[in-house]
Amino acid sequence: MMDVFCNLTLSDVQKARLQRGLGKVQLHHFDENVPENIARPYFEKSDIVFGNPPSSWIVTHPSLCWVQLESVGFGEYLSLNWNTLGNRLTITNLSGFFSDPVAESILAGVLAFYRGIDRLVLLKHAADWQGDLLRPSLRTLHGANVVLFGQGAVNARFADLIAPFGCSITRFGRGWETASLNKSLAQADLVVSTVPDTPETRGVFDRGRLNHMKRGSIFANFGRGSVVHDDALADALEGGLLMGAVIDVTRDEPLPVEHRFWRTPNLILTQHSGGGTGNEIDRKIEWFLDNFGRYQRGEKLHAVVDFARGY
Amino acid sequence: MMDVFCNLTLSDVQKARLQRGLGKVQLHHFDENVPENIARPYFEKSDIVFGNPPSSWIVTHPSLCWVQLESVGFGEYLSLNWNTLGNRLTITNLSGFFSDPVAESILAGVLAFYRGIDRLVLLKHAADWQGDLLRPSLRTLHGANVVLFGQGAVNARFADLIAPFGCSITRFGRGWETASLNKSLAQADLVVSTVPDTPETRGVFDRGRLNHMKRGSIFANFGRGSVVHDDALADALEGGLLMGAVIDVTRDEPLPVEHRFWRTPNLILTQHSGGGTGNEIDRKIEWFLDNFGRYQRGEKLHAVVDFARGY
Repeated sequence: MMDVFCNLTLSDVQKARLQRGLGKVQLHHFDENVPENIARPYFEKSDIVFGNPPSSWIVTHPSLCWVQLESVGFGEYLSLNWNTLGNRLTITNLSGFFSDPVAESILAGVLAFYRGIDRLVLLKHAADWQGDLLRPSLRTLHGANVVLFGQGAVNARFADLIAPFGCSITRFGRGWETASLNKSLAQADLVVSTVPDTPETRGVFDRGRLNHMKRGSIFANFGRGSVVHDDALADALEGGLLMGAVIDVTRDEPLPVEHRFWRTPNLILTQHSGGGTGNEIDRKIEWFLDNFGRYQRGEKLHAVVDFARGY
Repeated sequence: MMDVFCNLTLSDVQKARLQRGLGKVQLHHFDENVPENIARPYFEKSDIVFGNPPSSWIVTHPSLCWVQLESVGFGEYLSLNWNTLGNRLTITNLSGFFSDPVAESILAGVLAFYRGIDRLVLLKHAADWQGDLLRPSLRTLHGANVVLFGQGAVNARFADLIAPFGCSITRFGRGWETASLNKSLAQADLVVSTVPDTPETRGVFDRGRLNHMKRGSIFANFGRGSVVHDDALADALEGGLLMGAVIDVTRDEPLPVEHRFWRTPNLILTQHSGGGTGNEIDRKIEWFLDNFGRYQRGEKLHAVVDFARGY
């Protein structure tokens, strides 16, 4: 008899849906705030985990077979010894799960700058009619030069969404070359970074590279905050080199109240909400149950993490 | 020898571009703030006008052949006697000219509600991190039921832009039927009105019809303010029937400081900037010169106004 451990925060309806999908398999569900001494024994006797358990629990559980994470990121498990663990334990993540909402958030933020929504929201707050005075500062995304830095599901979906805008799109993925990237940045109206934190991506958008960007361009970061140097980005926005930036991810989250970004002009902070939707827990349950069906039938699981590759 | 009168506000570079395009044709250019007694004699001797002259000037100019308006709207000329005037005078407008920026503004406003940009802009202003708390309220446009009220160039372009979102689109144009519209509104997640002010469209979105709309839906008006009843819309937003409204056009513009819309929640006021772009004067000049070439070659002009139809 199989046991499944789950530590997502679920409503009663969601718990019932999960149990129904698991059939006769025993479900042990504990909210994340249940004390370790109560939850951990049930974790220890489970074969499958749905959620993100502490990495220390994984190491000491000798018969765990499969963990379905409820995230795309898995940085907290990178330091485990996967040369040994990898032989008996499979980890799957939600790769691709958030691509639709994140791509919509990127487009929402970018269009906000092109069409002045960020300023209009503040003008409404101040009951200030600017009307025709706004028009000279407005632009369209139509026909823009776009650089997509990162070739995962999010940028693929974003490229789909902007297809009707007639943009020229240049893509950079693993093995990108400095000269080629710098040349493209100099001509880009919009740069969208969706890459994870890896030694290769850390600090790519430092002061030197931001200074390569075209005057009046827009920068969007929906990957990881470590890709960009915060002060260099804030300077580029304050100095008017960049028209705007849409930042979903920052080095520290929550962003500390004293951080300069709060006072940086033409910066939309989406507060790592890019992947959010009202129905995301329901969708995660369906994702897990689909993978659980594959597991039972001995089929290949969806979105198996490759720890050797690092993302 | 032909004479062209123009009353757009132009830079020296733009004036030079216009004269170059007109070749040997005499250009009389006066900014809108030049007194009538100086400008009007040059208007009287011109065959062609580029701009929106006072309607009283048109009536008393017996040899005027063609007016290229710098707008889509031509309400200020509707009351003239077109049964007589129409025999000797052609009016062209900029129909379709603004469809690209307006469609982008509609999408920018709509996505702002789905992805929380309006709230995020105010949270940044207040240096307030909400993070994960935002996620349950976020939604995606993907797969939404969309009603397009108005079948002109703007809604056609908007339909192009949302093609990748996999929406179900229902269109209503002239001759729409009440029962059919009400039924569609009850199922629509998003309703976009782009119709002009005509007896048929005035007050279409009154209290009764807004109450037919689906709970949590979004309403966008980029046609004319007379289509909607302001108080009914404000009530629908305050009461939570509508998730949001994107309003480009209002009955009074500028919107009076005491108007309720300034204090209505979940309302993005784009202040009739929807058609604006930094290069719009340049684009208007090119539009006029293109039509001028047709005029000289005796070809059919682009976007001739049909005063019998009223738009």
